[in-house]
Amino acid sequence: MTADLRAEVTTAVARVRDRSPLVHGATGSVTRALVADGLLAAGARPMLTESVAEAPTLVTVADALLINLGSLSTDGMAGFVPTARAAHERGIPWVLDPTAIGLAPVRTPIAHDLCALGPTVVRGNASEILTLSGGGRGGRGADSTATPDDAATAARHLADGRCIVAVSGERDLITDGERTIRVTGGSAMLTRVSGTGCLLGGLTAALLAVAAGGTEAKGVTPFACAVAATALLTVAADRVGAMGPGSFRVALLDALDAVSAAEVGDGVGLAWE
Amino acid sequence: MTADLRAEVTTAVARVRDRSPLVHGATGSVTRALVADGLLAAGARPMLTESVAEAPTLVTVADALLINLGSLSTDGMAGFVPTARAAHERGIPWVLDPTAIGLAPVRTPIAHDLCALGPTVVRGNASEILTLSGGGRGGRGADSTATPDDAATAARHLADGRCIVAVSGERDLITDGERTIRVTGGSAMLTRVSGTGCLLGGLTAALLAVAAGGTEAKGVTPFACAVAATALLTVAADRVGAMGPGSFRVALLDALDAVSAAEVGDGVGLAWE
Amino acid sequence: MTADLRAEVTTAVARVRDRSPLVHGATGSVTRALVADGLLAAGARPMLTESVAEAPTLVTVADALLINLGSLSTDGMAGFVPTARAAHERGIPWVLDPTAIGLAPVRTPIAHDLCALGPTVVRGNASEILTLSGGGRGGRGADSTATPDDAATAARHLADGRCIVAVSGERDLITDGERTIRVTGGSAMLTRVSGTGCLLGGLTAALLAVAAGGTEAKGVTPFACAVAATALLTVAADRVGAMGPGSFRVALLDALDAVSAAEVGDGVGLAWE
Repeated sequence: MTADLRAEVTTAVARVRDRSPLVHGATGSVTRALVADGLLAAGARPMLTESVAEAPTLVTVADALLINLGSLSTDGMAGFVPTARAAHERGIPWVLDPTAIGLAPVRTPIAHDLCALGPTVVRGNASEILTLSGGGRGGRGADSTATPDDAATAARHLADGRCIVAVSGERDLITDGERTIRVTGGSAMLTRVSGTGCLLGGLTAALLAVAAGGTEAKGVTPFACAVAATALLTVAADRVGAMGPGSFRVALLDALDAVSAAEVGDGVGLAWE
Repeated sequence: MTADLRAEVTTAVARVRDRSPLVHGATGSVTRALVADGLLAAGARPMLTESVAEAPTLVTVADALLINLGSLSTDGMAGFVPTARAAHERGIPWVLDPTAIGLAPVRTPIAHDLCALGPTVVRGNASEILTLSGGGRGGRGADSTATPDDAATAARHLADGRCIVAVSGERDLITDGERTIRVTGGSAMLTRVSGTGCLLGGLTAALLAVAAGGTEAKGVTPFACAVAATALLTVAADRVGAMGPGSFRVALLDALDAVSAAEVGDGVGLAWE
Repeated sequence: MTADLRAEVTTAVARVRDRSPLVHGATGSVTRALVADGLLAAGARPMLTESVAEAPTLVTVADALLINLGSLSTDGMAGFVPTARAAHERGIPWVLDPTAIGLAPVRTPIAHDLCALGPTVVRGNASEILTLSGGGRGGRGADSTATPDDAATAARHLADGRCIVAVSGERDLITDGERTIRVTGGSAMLTRVSGTGCLLGGLTAALLAVAAGGTEAKGVTPFACAVAATALLTVAADRVGAMGPGSFRVALLDALDAVSAAEVGDGVGLAWE
C-alpha cells in the first residue's frame, strides 16, 4: 500500500513538471511572492489575484485554486467566496487554507462558508483544523498551540469522505476520513521563514491539478496529491539541511526545482495510522 | 547606427546610477518587493503606492511612472487612471504594462483607458500586446502563448509614432513604429522567477527618467531608453548564468548593481529588423 | 551609564529569543515579507494584517504593534487608527513609523491622529520626524533629504517625556526628550534593500514587547528597547559586510538569527549627546 502511494507521489510530482498547471491563488499579501516563486520552482504557473472584479472570472481558466485567508484584505473578503464557487461549479479542484481562524473572529464564518463550497483539500495547522471542525481556539497568529495528534480526530471528522484534510506540524497528518497517513521529515527552519505553510497550500493545488486527465492509464488520487505536496516540500527542505533563515528560503526554492520526482516518492517518510 | 544606439544605452544606464531617479510604481502586490529591490540595485529609487488617495499626488514629484495591471486590486482599479493622467499632464514619462489583459475582462478596458493617456512605452509579452492592439486572447496567466514574431505587426501598429512598444520574449522586440530592433540574450531563468517582467517595466521607467535633462549636450531618446532597460536586465541575467531559481533571483539583484554601463551597452545582442 | 545600557540591550535581545513575542504589524505591502522574515529571524512571531475588519481585534492578543504608513492602502487608512487605539487602551506597546509623510498629504493627518494615541516609540528618518513635529518637507519617497543632526531638536521636542523618538540615518539618534544617544555603525547597503527601515520598526516593536514582565527582577526600559532594536539591526548589518544588494538581504536575515545578544550589547557603537 505504501509502495503504491510512493508511486503515485512520484507520478504526481513528475506530472506537475510536465504539464505546468496554472494555479490561481487568492492568498495573503505577506507571502504572495514566496507562493509565486515556489510554484514556479516546482514547475507550476502562478496567477495570484483576489478581487471580486476579476478573480471569479480568472479562476475559470485555471487548473486549480488556492484560497488562503492570511492577511485578509477587504478585496479578499469580497472575492474569496465567489471565486471558490466558480471553481466548485466547474469542477476545478481547490484548496482551503483557513489561516489564523478562531483568533480572528471575522475569518471563521468566511472559512465555514468556503467549507460549504466543497474544497478538495483543507490544509492548516492543528489549531486551525480544530477551530474549523468546531473545537479549539486557533492558536496565536500563524502558529499552532496544538499538534497534529491533538487534531487527528477533528481532521477525520472534518474529512469524512467529503474532502482531504492535511494538518501540518512536526509530523504532518493527512486523512480522507478513512485512511490516515503521517508524513515525517522536513526542517525546523520551515517555521522560521514566513509563508512556507501558504506555499504548501499552493503546492497542494498544483498537485491536485494533475490528479486527473492526461494519457496515463493509471490515475492519481486527490489523497495521493495531498501527500505528494507535503512530500515535495518536506524532501526539498531535508535536502537543504541546516543554514540561516535567509539562506534557507533561497535554497528551498532551488531544491523545489532540483529535487527529482523519484527522490520525493522514494525518499519521503510515510507511516500509516 | 547600432554603434550610436550602444553609446546611448551606455549613457542612459550610467545616468540612472548618477541621478538616482525617483520611480513611482503602481504595480501588483505579488512582485512589488522584486520591483523595489531591482530598482534600488539599478541605482534608482522606488516609491510604490497605488491608491487614489495618494498616488495621483505622489506621482507629481516622481521622475517617471510605471503602471502595471498585475494582481489588480480595488485600490489599483481606482488609482491607475488618475495617476497616469497626473503624469501625462505634467510630462512625466510613463510605462504601461498591461499584465494579463484579455484573460481578465476587467483589465482590458482599463488598459485601453490608460493607453489613451499617452504612455511613453507600452511593455508586455506578445499575447498582451496582441490583445491591446485589438487581436489575440491574452495568453494564460502571466504567460504568453504567442511570440514576439507573432506580435511584430501589432506592436508597430500600436506604436505608430505615438509611443514605444516593447515586447518581451525569447528575442525581445522594441519598436517606435518606424524602427524595430531585437534584443537577444538573457537567461531562461527569468521566466522561473516571479516579477522579472514587472521589474523590466520598472527599469524602463527608471531609464526613461534620464532621457532628457542634465548638462550633457547629447540626448538619449526614449527609444534608446527602452532598449537600455531590456539590455540592462538581459546582460545582468547573462552575467548570472545557470543556477536554481532562488539563487538566480538573488544573483540577478547583485548583477543589476555590479554590471557596468559599458558592459550593458557593449555586450547586449542587438539586431535591427 | 553606557555599561548599564549595554547590559539592558543584551538582556532585551536575549528576551526576544526566549519569549518569541507576537508582533502585530500593519505595514506597507512592498516590505511585508522582509518585516515578517526579519521578525522570525530575530526570534519574534509576526502577524501582519491591517483591515478594520480584523486588525483591531487581532492586536488585542499581540505583545506589541507596529503601524507603518508605507504604501498606504484603503484598508490601512481605515484600519490604522482603530488598531492603534485598541493597543493604546490595553497598554500594548506600539511603534509609529510615519513613512513618507509630508510628501503624501493624505498621510500627514493620519500620522498626527496616530501620534495622539500614545505611541511608545516614533521611528522615522529625519525628514519624517521633522514633518511630524511640524517642520520639514518629508523628503522624496522613502528617502530623507535631512540628517539626524537636522532633526535632533525636533526629535527631542516630539519626545518630551511622552514617547521615545528614533531617527535613522548614518548615525541613528534616539531620544526620550531628556537623554539622547547616537548609535553608530551599520552598512550603507541597508539603504539599497527595500524595507530595512520598516524592519527596524518591526524589531523595535518586538523589543518593546519584552520591556516589562517575566521573572527577572531587573527591568528593561522602553528607551533601552529602542536602542536595542537599532543595535540589533546595526550589528547584524556590520556582521554581513560588503556584498551585492540581493546577497545582502539574504545575509542580513541570517545575521539577525546568528548574532548573539552579547555581541549586540557589547559590539554596538554608542555615544551620548
